[in-house]
Amino acid sequence: MAEEGINKRKTEHIRICLTDNVEGVNKSTGLEGISFIHNALPEVNFHDIKLETRFLDKTLQAPFLVSSMTGGSEMAAEINRNLAIAAEERGWAIALGSTRAILEGDKHQDSFLIRKYAPTVPIIANLGAVQLNYGYGADEAQKLVDLTEADSLYLHLNSLQEIIQDEGDLNFEDLLPKIEEVCKQLTVPVGVKEVGFGIDGTVARKLHDAGVAYIDVSGAGGTSWSQVEKLRSKDPLRKAAAEAFNNWGIPTKDCIVSVKNNLHQVPVVASGGMKTGLDAAKAITIGADMIGFARTLLQAATESAEAVNRVMEQIEFELKIAMFGIGVKDLKELKNTNRVEIMGKSLLEG
Amino acid sequence: MAEEGINKRKTEHIRICLTDNVEGVNKSTGLEGISFIHNALPEVNFHDIKLETRFLDKTLQAPFLVSSMTGGSEMAAEINRNLAIAAEERGWAIALGSTRAILEGDKHQDSFLIRKYAPTVPIIANLGAVQLNYGYGADEAQKLVDLTEADSLYLHLNSLQEIIQDEGDLNFEDLLPKIEEVCKQLTVPVGVKEVGFGIDGTVARKLHDAGVAYIDVSGAGGTSWSQVEKLRSKDPLRKAAAEAFNNWGIPTKDCIVSVKNNLHQVPVVASGGMKTGLDAAKAITIGADMIGFARTLLQAATESAEAVNRVMEQIEFELKIAMFGIGVKDLKELKNTNRVEIMGKSLLEG
Amino acid sequence: MAEEGINKRKTEHIRICLTDNVEGVNKSTGLEGISFIHNALPEVNFHDIKLETRFLDKTLQAPFLVSSMTGGSEMAAEINRNLAIAAEERGWAIALGSTRAILEGDKHQDSFLIRKYAPTVPIIANLGAVQLNYGYGADEAQKLVDLTEADSLYLHLNSLQEIIQDEGDLNFEDLLPKIEEVCKQLTVPVGVKEVGFGIDGTVARKLHDAGVAYIDVSGAGGTSWSQVEKLRSKDPLRKAAAEAFNNWGIPTKDCIVSVKNNLHQVPVVASGGMKTGLDAAKAITIGADMIGFARTLLQAATESAEAVNRVMEQIEFELKIAMFGIGVKDLKELKNTNRVEIMGKSLLEG
Amino acid sequence: MAEEGINKRKTEHIRICLTDNVEGVNKSTGLEGISFIHNALPEVNFHDIKLETRFLDKTLQAPFLVSSMTGGSEMAAEINRNLAIAAEERGWAIALGSTRAILEGDKHQDSFLIRKYAPTVPIIANLGAVQLNYGYGADEAQKLVDLTEADSLYLHLNSLQEIIQDEGDLNFEDLLPKIEEVCKQLTVPVGVKEVGFGIDGTVARKLHDAGVAYIDVSGAGGTSWSQVEKLRSKDPLRKAAAEAFNNWGIPTKDCIVSVKNNLHQVPVVASGGMKTGLDAAKAITIGADMIGFARTLLQAATESAEAVNRVMEQIEFELKIAMFGIGVKDLKELKNTNRVEIMGKSLLEG
Ligand SMILES: Cc1cc2nc3c(=O)[nH]c(=O)nc-3n(C[C@H](O)[C@H](O)[C@H](O)COP(=O)(O)O)c2cc1C
Ligand SMILES: Cc1cc2nc3c(=O)[nH]c(=O)nc-3n(C[C@H](O)[C@H](O)[C@H](O)COP(=O)(O)O)c2cc1C
Ligand SMILES: Cc1cc2nc3c(=O)[nH]c(=O)nc-3n(C[C@H](O)[C@H](O)[C@H](O)COP(=O)(O)O)c2cc1C
Ligand SMILES: Cc1cc2nc3c(=O)[nH]c(=O)nc-3n(C[C@H](O)[C@H](O)[C@H](O)COP(=O)(O)O)c2cc1C
Repeated sequence: MAEEGINKRKTEHIRICLTDNVEGVNKSTGLEGISFIHNALPEVNFHDIKLETRFLDKTLQAPFLVSSMTGGSEMAAEINRNLAIAAEERGWAIALGSTRAILEGDKHQDSFLIRKYAPTVPIIANLGAVQLNYGYGADEAQKLVDLTEADSLYLHLNSLQEIIQDEGDLNFEDLLPKIEEVCKQLTVPVGVKEVGFGIDGTVARKLHDAGVAYIDVSGAGGTSWSQVEKLRSKDPLRKAAAEAFNNWGIPTKDCIVSVKNNLHQVPVVASGGMKTGLDAAKAITIGADMIGFARTLLQAATESAEAVNRVMEQIEFELKIAMFGIGVKDLKELKNTNRVEIMGKSLLEG
Repeated sequence: MAEEGINKRKTEHIRICLTDNVEGVNKSTGLEGISFIHNALPEVNFHDIKLETRFLDKTLQAPFLVSSMTGGSEMAAEINRNLAIAAEERGWAIALGSTRAILEGDKHQDSFLIRKYAPTVPIIANLGAVQLNYGYGADEAQKLVDLTEADSLYLHLNSLQEIIQDEGDLNFEDLLPKIEEVCKQLTVPVGVKEVGFGIDGTVARKLHDAGVAYIDVSGAGGTSWSQVEKLRSKDPLRKAAAEAFNNWGIPTKDCIVSVKNNLHQVPVVASGGMKTGLDAAKAITIGADMIGFARTLLQAATESAEAVNRVMEQIEFELKIAMFGIGVKDLKELKNTNRVEIMGKSLLEG
Repeated sequence: MAEEGINKRKTEHIRICLTDNVEGVNKSTGLEGISFIHNALPEVNFHDIKLETRFLDKTLQAPFLVSSMTGGSEMAAEINRNLAIAAEERGWAIALGSTRAILEGDKHQDSFLIRKYAPTVPIIANLGAVQLNYGYGADEAQKLVDLTEADSLYLHLNSLQEIIQDEGDLNFEDLLPKIEEVCKQLTVPVGVKEVGFGIDGTVARKLHDAGVAYIDVSGAGGTSWSQVEKLRSKDPLRKAAAEAFNNWGIPTKDCIVSVKNNLHQVPVVASGGMKTGLDAAKAITIGADMIGFARTLLQAATESAEAVNRVMEQIEFELKIAMFGIGVKDLKELKNTNRVEIMGKSLLEG
Repeated sequence: MAEEGINKRKTEHIRICLTDNVEGVNKSTGLEGISFIHNALPEVNFHDIKLETRFLDKTLQAPFLVSSMTGGSEMAAEINRNLAIAAEERGWAIALGSTRAILEGDKHQDSFLIRKYAPTVPIIANLGAVQLNYGYGADEAQKLVDLTEADSLYLHLNSLQEIIQDEGDLNFEDLLPKIEEVCKQLTVPVGVKEVGFGIDGTVARKLHDAGVAYIDVSGAGGTSWSQVEKLRSKDPLRKAAAEAFNNWGIPTKDCIVSVKNNLHQVPVVASGGMKTGLDAAKAITIGADMIGFARTLLQAATESAEAVNRVMEQIEFELKIAMFGIGVKDLKELKNTNRVEIMGKSLLEG
């Protein structure tokens, strides 16, 4: 697909994500099956609650990540700038949308260069893993990291998105050894993420064995690419297929549990349908180390850095309320709380 | 927050509770999971059914309590008067809304002085437990009890309400020893209550070990403070947070079961979402000793003592119907009935 | 209550049952949890399917009963006539509404004298069991049977109906020995029925031990007296109580199973919410011997005997279809079929 | 019923199936209880995925079948032509609607002669099994096969349809030995199908023992004949009966599982409510060998062969997407995948 075409598609994606219902049908993250058990006597001072954490060898003010969204257009430049400024202000990590455009000499490649707005927080560059079957390798990956001054690289897995969207790059054969090669060569740690259909423990284990440093599950329950394509596509075949698959994907909650069961020590980023700090609190309770937000930040990102900052503040506030509500004062205590009921089973009452 | 501000807020609370939907979203008391097994041959005379019980060393005509609501304004004075007259007429206990205003020399402090309307039934004064971290202690508590001629004092726990409402008094650290001190010093027994998010058995045990005489669970499923604040607040941060927490809290049914499992002998007041005498019957069957009604009485309380009396009569009548329906003739038999199905498990069929 | 009052009430009941929604709220018979497992190769000739059965020492053309509804007014006379003629034509049993009015010399007592319209089928007279505490005994019962030329007497248990309706005759104490006395004295067998709240196995066993020959469960899921009273009553206390109890009662399915578990040999009449021949088939599969229909026949009964006959034919046709669908050719085979799934458990697959 | 009458009825069926809601009430195939577990790293090339399979000794391009629908009228001739041309183009098998009309010398018997449009793919002729009790036998069956140049014969079982529709041919007694006779005599293999109420394993086993070569379950969850008759019939008795049975039938998913549990080696055709290639993928995962589509193709079949071809392409595309989504590259791998969750139980996580 020509560069022009990709940019048009990406702009349409943003527009549709801003205005339409792009959630899967009868699909949720599964986090509604988790509820905290209120602690009427919290025995903490709300003002002492701490959200600090470490990620990619840096200290963050909160366990939060701006998930990969965009780059490669004028609108994208604006969005990325706003996200980066706010991320720096609030001490969040930030991931870029697919940075492949840089390698292809895109005229809007500046849109990816956000280090000037976010001098201290972790930045994560991004490349479609499938591109390793289409001419890209460790050298190009390193180039992306260098140009964006990133602390890490995301390889994203997006098989279903590719097929529903344009039958573009559909050869996912033998990717694993190539991912391994990139992990070996790169000067920064490599994370792997999905784009909304989820990564389970079996796949995560293979990826970790290949050298992947952390997993971003990006599960189902949030932005659904089959839904986006149903709204965008004009090809009846694809429109109908998108409709048929509106329920596809592993719910984010199931991804987290499955990955944690398989890989106890590897950092897990929970993303896909995260909307509030309460969602974040639940995900942390079942094993997530970091929480990624994509669409939840999109509207504000088209407005201003201040607007993004306000949404971020909101999310942090809600996470703190949840922690206050069960009486824990830092993330470690939150991870280990028994004041939680998972699918009707209370950890407190046993 | 200035006195004027508190009064304004309290009046808004009443107004919102009277006119809007203030129940949590997808949240219920859990009592709908309990159903009685009709006894076609009750073998009792309806007219012999007795509701009498003992509470705070007095005999009540029914196991019912007017839950803490208000005080400290003109409207509150009227409400409290109506509630008190009706409570006396029907032999219910009555609790006051937070009486802290008395200590601060509020001009409407007369609104709390209801002993003249309710000379014989138990009156319970009320203070926010968190105030023990903000300058109040056993002496002030005793003063409240003395001024209101109360038979007992409620310390209410309202962490989530405080945070969603105004980030006022948020230091809940080390409250337990202070509660213990109050229990030790006070001339009357101290009860602890929540305000709608519920107390579980673990917390109840700690409180009881500290000297608390009885527990009012005030669980989720009735008036929801996150909902009230969502409607009241003008601050978008708080409004959104209130929305995110519209599902928070331990359902009243779960509170009762959990507290009873942990504290077999301690009196439990079931409140939070109690609407009918049938709700009361269910709560008693799973362990409650007293049933508290707040919002269910509010509308009538703004009208007249007669209106309150009629709602109370209604509730008593319904409790008797339930007892007749299963063929028991006093509260002891009700507590021990096996004509009940709890979450699909029949105690009768085993 | 004066005779005039009773008649007025009964006429209102009929009118409300004809025009309004009188089913309980979120209440069903439970039969929807039973489904037959279609037999694609039934290996029977539809025209050979037999519905014949024995009841009260007579042969019926189908295992069906016109449940107790009415008597004692002009409208009732018409209804009873139509029901009786159709029952005779189709070989159904027929029960009368409460026949107490006869004893009190009601001017419409002719309305109960249906033997002339139904010379051969079983007729069941009817008296409120609670009347045994209010001056009636075996002699009066025998008189009812004699006057109506009945084959049996129903004693109906209606505690909840009485209390919600008028607090009339509410002394249900020590009824059992009096029921025993009636059973002993009467020249015909005595059955006991509820009126829509259900009889469970424990109560059924007591009744059987007292000499009751068969049990009509009349469970919840059909006509709900709390609903009828909610619509009829003008007294706000009763209206609200009726509302609170709109979910009360043991679902018909649970009654049948419970009674059969306790009394293997005693005939069980399933009534309460029976609408179609498919409902009947399900009830038979779980143990019912006879199926009673009240409100399902009411509309037609106000029209003509032909209209009633058509509804009866409809029900028989549906029962036969169900039997054809699973490939059984008589009621004995239906009772023993394993082509049924009960609450998700298939008897066929084990 | 006269020939004219049958044709009229069949045309009405088509019209109703095209325009009205003809699905059962609260009835589904059960396939919604199956979900695939997305494989984020599929390790296959989408373009290598193969759908080829063998059926009736021929190679098909996809495991798909045009289910029996029609014949015997002008409209039917057009429909069958379009279906046949498209089936040939895409390499699907195709079954005819009941071909009994041929034997009765129907004037539209040409409508069944589709071999000229579909020279290479398997064609299946069709006869109501119950006709074996009404004068037809192996000779007539052979004649149908010969005239239609079919590779196989379907005997369809349609007891419930017959009874709800017209009480026509309702003697299903002793059909089994006659089916056995047909299987023995015929020069081609015999399959048995239902018409939407489903075949379970017990029945399938009997049929297989009698010589039936394959089973088409045609379960509930798709076109419901009780629904069709409810809309079509003018006889109130039948209309009401159809309504009462709107929930009858074994869901397609349950049929497949039950038949496979009983007959491990016998080919199973899954039909009844199959709408997408994703449905097909699910059915294959639980044991189906072929997937049949009736109503899903009907609208297109009234338009043109190209329209049918497009729907078929759609279905194939969706099946491939599902296979890509879990990372399998042929039907054998699909059948054996553990990337599936059945009724909440994950085969992957155990
Ligand atoms: C507008 C938009 C653009 C996106 N672009 C990318 C991308 O270029 N690369 C990528 O890995 N993920 C991309 N994603 C996926 C997100 O990173 C995330 O995995 C997914 O949206 C689920 O999270 P959410 O429910 O919070 O939106 C995009 C998401 C959105 C909403
Ligand atoms: C208008 C209103 C004011 C209240 N004020 C107080 C209060 O001052 N102190 C307190 O402990 N609880 C207060 N409550 C909480 C109630 O005592 C009770 O715990 C809660 O409302 C749940 O019960 P309900 O569902 O019956 O309303 C108030 C409740 C209402 C509706
Ligand atoms: C209009 C009407 C009047 C009834 N009157 C009597 C009665 O006099 N005696 C009695 O035992 N049951 C009476 N019943 C109760 C029925 O016999 C039956 O137990 C109950 O209605 C449940 O059955 P259904 O759901 O088929 O209506 C009456 C029911 C109706 C609808
Ligand atoms: C319009 C129409 C006509 C049908 N005619 C026949 C028929 O003649 N013989 C037969 O065996 N099945 C017939 N069927 C049943 C189908 O073959 C199939 O078993 C059933 O419709 C369920 O599949 P579906 O949900 O995909 O429609 C017909 C179905 C339809 C929709």
